Parts: sequence; C-alpha cells; structure tokens
Amino acid sequence: MLKEALYHRPKLNWAYAYDEKTLHIRFRTKRDDVEQVKLWYGDKYLPWERMEQVELKVLTSDSLFDYWETYIQPRYRRLVYGFDLISGDERLWYTERGAVLTPLSEHVGLFDFPFMNKVDVYRTPDWVKEAVFYQIFPERFANGDPSNDPDQVQPWGGKPERDNFFGGDLQGVLNHLDHLTELGVNAIYFNPLFQATTNHKYDTKDYLQVDRHFGDNAMLKKLVDECHLRGIRVMLDAVFNHSGKTFEPFVDILKNGADSPYADWFHVRQFPLNIVDGIPTYDTFAFEPIMPKLNTEHPAVKEYLLGVAKYWIEEVGVDGWRLDVANEVDHQFWREFRQVVKQAKPDAYILGEIFHDSLMWLQGDQFDAVMNYRFTNIVLDFFAKKKLDGYHLACDLGGLLASYPQQANEAAFNLLDSHDTPRLLTLCGGDKRVMKLAVLFLMTYTGTPCIYYGDEIGLDGEGDPDCRKCMVWDKEKQDLDLFTFFQSAIALRKAIPALRTGSIKFTHAMEGDLLLTYERELNGERYLVALNRSEDIRSIKLPAGGWSVALSSDAGIQITESKDTEIQPYGYMVLHKENEA
Amino acid sequence: MLKEALYHRPKLNWAYAYDEKTLHIRFRTKRDDVEQVKLWYGDKYLPWERMEQVELKVLTSDSLFDYWETYIQPRYRRLVYGFDLISGDERLWYTERGAVLTPLSEHVGLFDFPFMNKVDVYRTPDWVKEAVFYQIFPERFANGDPSNDPDQVQPWGGKPERDNFFGGDLQGVLNHLDHLTELGVNAIYFNPLFQATTNHKYDTKDYLQVDRHFGDNAMLKKLVDECHLRGIRVMLDAVFNHSGKTFEPFVDILKNGADSPYADWFHVRQFPLNIVDGIPTYDTFAFEPIMPKLNTEHPAVKEYLLGVAKYWIEEVGVDGWRLDVANEVDHQFWREFRQVVKQAKPDAYILGEIFHDSLMWLQGDQFDAVMNYRFTNIVLDFFAKKKLDGYHLACDLGGLLASYPQQANEAAFNLLDSHDTPRLLTLCGGDKRVMKLAVLFLMTYTGTPCIYYGDEIGLDGEGDPDCRKCMVWDKEKQDLDLFTFFQSAIALRKAIPALRTGSIKFTHAMEGDLLLTYERELNGERYLVALNRSEDIRSIKLPAGGWSVALSSDAGIQITESKDTEIQPYGYMVLHKENEA
Repeated sequence: MLKEALYHRPKLNWAYAYDEKTLHIRFRTKRDDVEQVKLWYGDKYLPWERMEQVELKVLTSDSLFDYWETYIQPRYRRLVYGFDLISGDERLWYTERGAVLTPLSEHVGLFDFPFMNKVDVYRTPDWVKEAVFYQIFPERFANGDPSNDPDQVQPWGGKPERDNFFGGDLQGVLNHLDHLTELGVNAIYFNPLFQATTNHKYDTKDYLQVDRHFGDNAMLKKLVDECHLRGIRVMLDAVFNHSGKTFEPFVDILKNGADSPYADWFHVRQFPLNIVDGIPTYDTFAFEPIMPKLNTEHPAVKEYLLGVAKYWIEEVGVDGWRLDVANEVDHQFWREFRQVVKQAKPDAYILGEIFHDSLMWLQGDQFDAVMNYRFTNIVLDFFAKKKLDGYHLACDLGGLLASYPQQANEAAFNLLDSHDTPRLLTLCGGDKRVMKLAVLFLMTYTGTPCIYYGDEIGLDGEGDPDCRKCMVWDKEKQDLDLFTFFQSAIALRKAIPALRTGSIKFTHAMEGDLLLTYERELNGERYLVALNRSEDIRSIKLPAGGWSVALSSDAGIQITESKDTEIQPYGYMVLHKENEA
Repeated sequence: MLKEALYHRPKLNWAYAYDEKTLHIRFRTKRDDVEQVKLWYGDKYLPWERMEQVELKVLTSDSLFDYWETYIQPRYRRLVYGFDLISGDERLWYTERGAVLTPLSEHVGLFDFPFMNKVDVYRTPDWVKEAVFYQIFPERFANGDPSNDPDQVQPWGGKPERDNFFGGDLQGVLNHLDHLTELGVNAIYFNPLFQATTNHKYDTKDYLQVDRHFGDNAMLKKLVDECHLRGIRVMLDAVFNHSGKTFEPFVDILKNGADSPYADWFHVRQFPLNIVDGIPTYDTFAFEPIMPKLNTEHPAVKEYLLGVAKYWIEEVGVDGWRLDVANEVDHQFWREFRQVVKQAKPDAYILGEIFHDSLMWLQGDQFDAVMNYRFTNIVLDFFAKKKLDGYHLACDLGGLLASYPQQANEAAFNLLDSHDTPRLLTLCGGDKRVMKLAVLFLMTYTGTPCIYYGDEIGLDGEGDPDCRKCMVWDKEKQDLDLFTFFQSAIALRKAIPALRTGSIKFTHAMEGDLLLTYERELNGERYLVALNRSEDIRSIKLPAGGWSVALSSDAGIQITESKDTEIQPYGYMVLHKENEA
C-alpha cells in the first residue's frame, strides 16, 4: 500500500456531521491499491472491548485516489476511531500518528470526533435540493413598463454593448412568469436589482431601493408574492464586497477625503482618492475605480449591510442571497451574515460566488453552497470542448465530490453559463445536440441546476456583453424544440429524487471515449443515464433487471434485456430499473 | 516525482495570513523526492506578464514528506499562485487541478488566496511567546490561611487521595510568589478556583465565586494585582463544558425535572434524571454523573458563561482562559467567546484543552493555541520512554509543526506533565539527568513552556492522585540542584528570542541514535543545542564560525573549532554563534 497516498483529517470533508445524528467518515487511498478499509470505532469513555467495526465503501475516485466512506450514528454523539487497511497479505492501521504496523489496541492515538453539537451541524435548506433555478439579468429579460425606461433606451433586441440599455424591468418579469411555470423552474436568481448606474447594476448606489429603471420596492414585493403563489422562490444578488462610486458614503469620501465621516467605510491606501498608473489609491473590485471595496470589518458598515440583508427578507420576502465576490469579504462578516439571515428566514439559501476550492466557507458557519464553477469547467471540457474523455470527466467530478461535505454537494449551484461567460449554445459550437447532452447531464447530476435565461429557447452569444442579449419573446423566433427538451429534462429531475440526491456511480467512463453512462440510486430506486457525445452508434449492455425508458432522444426505443441497447450519435437515454419483486 | 504525495489546499495550515501583510504558503512533497519547488505568484487582476517567482525552502520533514514554505507580501492583499516542481529531468506544475505537465501560462487553474482581511488574521498575544508558565493546583500548593481549611483537612504533605484535602489556598500562593520570581516564570496557570465540592474543583457550583476554601474574590484580585506588579500574568481554568452537580440550575432540574426553568440548560435524554447501567440519562463529561454537560447552544447558558468569562477579566484582571474539554463544546460558542474575551482584554490568551489534532480551532476565530499534548507525547517517547530515536523524534515534531499555522506553534502550550499525568521525574524513572534533558528541550523549542508546580524542586508521583502531592517548602527537602537548573534553563529561554520564535533545524537526528542536535535562528542570531540522551560520550562537529557556551552540563567545557566537541553521557549544551563580521 502506498503510504504517501493515505489521508484523513478530522472535520473538513473527512469527518463531519451530516445531520444531528450521523457522522460521515472518509478515507483516501491510492487508486486501486487497497482491497478493504475498515473503521474501528467507539466511545472514548467506554472500554476498548466495546469498540465496533464497519467496512467503508468507495464513494468515488479520481485519477490518483480512491475515496472511501461510511456513516456512523454514535449513541453518545462522540466518536474515536481508526482505520484498518488490507491489501493481499499486507495490513496497516492508520491513526492520528499515521500508518502503523501494530493493530489498534487502545484509545490512544485514535482519531477523535469530540462531540456532535447541533449548532455546528452544516444544514442547507431542503427546498434548494428540489429546486431548478432560472437566472434573470433584469435589463435584458422583458420590458413590461416603458415608462421607467432609461433616457437612451434602445429598441428591444438590439446589439448589447457594455453600456447600453434596453429597458428590461420587473413588470416584464411579472408579465412572463407563465413562461417560467411552463418551463418548470421553481426558483429565480436575479442579477442585482438595486439602484446603480450601469446596466448590470453591480455598482450599487442605494442598497435599499430597487433601481428606478426596474420599478420600485413595491413592484418587487408584488413580483415576489406572485412568484411565491406559483411555488417559485426568489434569490437576489448581494453585492457587499464593493459599492458603486455613487454610493453616498463613497461620494462623501471623494468630496471630503480623510475628513469624511465615512473615511473608514472603505480601504483607502492614500488620500485624496486618485488613480495612479491605472491603479486606484483605494482597494476596489479588481482595479475597477467605480467599485470601491467596502470595509466590511467596520461596525457601521457591517450594521448597514446586515440590515440590508434582513430588510429584503422581511419586507419583500426574498428566499436567498447570492453573494457577489464572496471570497474577498472577511469570514467574520459572513458568519454574522448567516446568523442574521437564518434568523430572519431559517430556510433562506446563502450562496457564495467563489470560483475556487471553497471548503473553508462550507463548514456550516458561513455559506450553504457556492456557485459550482469547478463543476462548470469539467462538464464543459467534456461536452463542449472535448478536452476531457469520459474517464477524466469521472475522475475530475469524483475528486470534486470528495473535496466537500455531502451537504455542500447537494446544495451546490450548478451552472453551465451565466452573464459572465459565453452562452452554452455558443460554447457547444451552435450544436443543439451537444447542448442537450450537457443540459441533461446538469439535470441528472448532484447539485441544484441553474438555467441562464434564454438558453431554453436557443439564445446564443459570446462573452460579456454578447451573452446579455435581449430575451426573444416572438414564439416564431424561439427554438421550441429546445424548449420542449428543457421542459422534459426539468420535469424528469423534479419528479425523481434519485436524480437529485441519489448516489452516483459512473458505469462507463473510459479513456479516449465519449460515451458516458452512470447510475443514480436512492432508497432502492435506480436510474441509469447514458449520454453518447461521440459521432458513432454505440451499444450499451444493461445490468440485469427490467429497465423502462424515462427519457430518450430516440422516441421509439425498445429495451430488450437479451441484447445490447443501441444509442445513436449524440443520443441520450434515462432508464428506470423496475423494482425487484 | 510521486504525484500521490503532492499536497496543497488554500487556507488551513497551507496558505494563511501570518500577519496583516504576510502570507505563508506551504507545499508537501514525498521526502527527498523533489529538488526544487518554486512558487509562481501574482495579482489575479494583473496581466500574466506581471507574475513573479520565488523558491520555497524545506520548513521541516517527517518520515514520509518534505514540507516546503515561503513568505509573500502581496501588494494588493490578494494572490493567485501555482507550484513549479523540478527533480532531475522531470518537471511538473501543480495547480488547483492537481499535477500537470504543461507549464503555468494563465490565471485559470491557479490557486487563489482571495483577500487578506485584517479581521480574519489569526493573531496571538505577544506576551505568550515570551512567557514561561507555572501550573498551580491550588489545593496542594501552599496553605496560607488555615482559617479557611475544609473540615477534614489533613496534615500538609500527607498521601494524596482522590477525595482528601490539605488546605492549599490563594493566601498560600501569595506568600510564595518570591519562589516563582526566583524561578523566573512569568505566568501562572491555575487549575479551577471557583466554588465546587471536589479537591480539583472541576465540578463547579458557582462560576462567580472563588471557592471558600481557597479564599474569596477579593483575595483573588489581590493576588492577581500582586502578580501583575511582579510581571506575572494569570490564566484561569474555564470549565464550561460541564458544571458540577451542585450548580444551581442542575440542582433545580434534579428537583423539578422537565418542569424546571433550566430544563434546557443541559442535554437531558430522559426525565427524570437517572443513572441506568452506569450511564446517566443526561449527557455528561465522560459518563461522570456529577459533571452534567452544559447546553452551550442555549442563549441563556451562553449569556451566563460569556458573562463569567468577562467578569473575571474586568473585575479581577485575569490575563487568559484555559478551556477545559474544549473540543466537546460547540465551535459557535467559542467564536462568541473569543469576541467577548478579546473585547474585554485584547491580549488575553485563549487556550483550549484538546488532546488531538486541533486545526479547526486554530484558524483565528476560536483559540490562540491548544495544550500541546501531541508535543508532550513525542518528547516523552524520546527522553523518558526511549520509544523514539532522534530521527523519529525529528520526524514527528516536524509533522506536528507543519500541521498548524506558525501562530499556533508559537503560542502552543507545551507541557511535559500536569495534574492529569504522572510527574516528569517519575516518567523519567527518577533519573534527574534525563529529566533535565527533557526540560532543556522544552525550554529551547518553539511554543510556550509550562512547568507543573514542584517539578522544579524534585516532586515526583504517579498519575492522579499521586501527581497532586503537596508542594514541599522545607528547603532542606527541596532538590536545589534541580531548582538551579530550572532557573538557568528558564533564564536562557527568556533572554534569547531565537529559542522562542526562531526557525528550527535538526542537525543531528539519526535512526537508532539518542544524540540530538538542532539549530535555532532568528534575524541572524544562531544557537545550537546538543542533548546526549545516550550513555556514551559523543562528539559533535560544529559548523564553521566561532561558538560560545551559553549553557552546559560541563561547567569547564572549552570549544575549539579545530576539533570535535565532546559531550558527556546525559550531557547538554547550548552554544551561541558569534555574529559574522
């Protein structure tokens, strides 16, 4: 056994309370190197003779490692444990002191999960695991009230530029809620809605007012109420890392410099504020002068922003916050943010925008989940860019799953595109067949899917600003075949719990191969998904047992157990295993 | 290069802010497997051409791995980075996606340290790094006021039992402060002082009253004031995991069961409270019925205990809290505890009692440090038990250092014995020579040393209750040779910053060998420590440069550069390198 590959460290993603009663314990070995991993476990205050044993199973693997897992429900909410590894004639024990050749025989040296305190349990909202999100960039979704259009509004459907306006607003969203209901989504993620100067509104002027070109606070309340009536939840964008340059406290600093009562509200390196060689003399988002970084450590700033978070929940009823540039804000702020938000609405969704490994925000004290860009990159590399084969897709996704507690995976915000990236259809080279495979993967994988407005009717576009085109409402210009496909895929996900939170096992994921099959299972319900990204007809050998078709690209497909099932180029199918009698 | 051995994960002990300006970045490789590790780093919002490079150095090693480290001070407090590994003809790059064969060439895939927010920086009190602690078990240190003795007090110096009393008190400590000053210690850690029924007082009856057999609150204030006049800081024991059975709220539950207003102050599994087959029907420390576990999640309990923490700082001036059974209390409680304590006294020391890996309490939001039992075990295994040779001592201590941020190591509470373990002299088989080596190691290693009362004058004893003997005050019965040695070793540590927070490098630590040499260096000041645990005369080849003797077991030793330096069996020496001209 390769000792250098063995890994376990209590807490983090290795030993954590999944709920108030259940501990998840994981262990890492070199891939295909160890035959059996057993956990010895017990209560540290009971005698050694009371220790028990259980075998771990491989949860997932990446190219280097197998990740093993088991669940324990300790009677007294505390656990000591060690690992017992077997491979052929070789046997090792793994404790806090590393790999040893002597059997476990006393509590000393064992790993310790000291106590499962309820308040430390990392809990995410149940509804998030059932949700399919729809992201709306408000300036470009629908213009429902021309009376609030900006002065230089351009005709709907024109070419998007970084600084032009088309008049989208909240009345427009309200007018088109039927579209969302028809599509089947049950949650909206809104890009920023508050007063700002740009079309994207990430430069907030007033955190307590809906932008006047979008409507007003009463309009937002009306919209949220109507969404709730339809079973649609609403998440807003919290841009708390930085404000806009027109935010009153920043305006005051620009005017009064170090004498401003708001001098400490930002991170000013040198007064008066200036831009030297393209670099502001104050901290900003990136080096963007119009987005000064807020000093979220300052008590007054914190009070103000936490008040904002609470206000929109209490006054308007929003169901969650997506946190812009979340990882550049201090952890302390987010811990207090969680307290305030969960007190105002216990099942509010707290979602951080983080592009990187986010483990330290996903321990239960800060975020429920992060925007899963690591998922995005892997999935696009397989489906859109063909940079990964099936084997490496499974490896990379396996490593990602293993890197977080299960709660984080179940509530992860899985997206394939957004207002910051090229459109999915464009990434797929305009090939709808490829796009459908990627979307079906999104809908049948662990984590909460999000669809970027317009993808479902064939909107395309390169990166910002091209990905922020006006929504197309003329049915004749919408791709209705694509819309129907999205409907089916969403309906499937919503109907089948196993596709949301079931276990996942790749059953065909080979090097140099673009055919992918995987099974998902929950409480005995088994589903098999097959996605043929290749240009060849392929055949799939189904595991024994009766299978029925839940969704397929081949409408007339017959499943016959006695022979292999064919799958067309770019074909897909989702099969349901009949319950064993 | 062994890919399975490579490891880095942002935050934790791998990438953290050491202070407001400095990031420490670490990387792990298989031991002796990689020749060069370089860091490519820069600002994620600046162009790739602005990326810089720096070589990492090996911080420390254990039996499997080398741990590399470098420091960076990012101009804009944020950093992206990747690693560049070279070994012979082989070259690898290591990013968030793992080891890759293609050179780093764009920001994508790089690790991210998103922003160094001040409030998140893990800061420990400066004085702790300069401190030498002295642990006092109050019932056994000195009886200064017979009028407050318990009824059945026994004559001073009798045999300690689990439940007998000898009358030690705070007046006794006050009377003997000269002893501490002479010894040279500058901080006291008191075992519990508050009202309780046992002699150890870990079963608190009243958190706001000094135990009447020890004195009263005014007496404690007088003692703390006098300590402060002498430059001695005072740390108390916070027993917040559980109360005693005589704690008023618990008494009320015993009486009124589920109807008690305090019913939620504890974790009751079943009313009425009972003990079934030796297991209480309520959560306790271990299965100890007289120590019911407090529900530290309950707002009223939290308010009460946080009030206690604040009270003793504000009213009496205590300088720190040692947290009993710290890891069984919820993280949320400790986060609030830190806020309250640091607000009351910004340089208060917060020390957790944790016997295991404590990384998740040592991220800046909870504890300053933990009682370093992992250090204790390793050091005793080498010096007292001879279970480790020099090589494995260095490996185990190296792995321990690498497992925490540097702040945690610098403020770690290093102890060799306590009221819970056999006495050091007894662990050393009564051999003072061995004991001296262990103590000198303690005094010349990273982390804050603590001496258990009486060790310095030759007190011995097996585990509890034998390790809780009465202090010997008769000079003729004290081991004054030992006392003088302790004085010298303490004085040395206090005089030489390099012995406290300097880098550490084992220069002789071999398999099957009990001679140990190591160097410590800080700002160009170099010291070499040699400890000969073996029974043979050994010789040491000094590195070039003039060396002078700072402390040695051989009073007349001459250091001659041209020949090796002899070190006697059980001998020790601390040498100072003259500064290069």
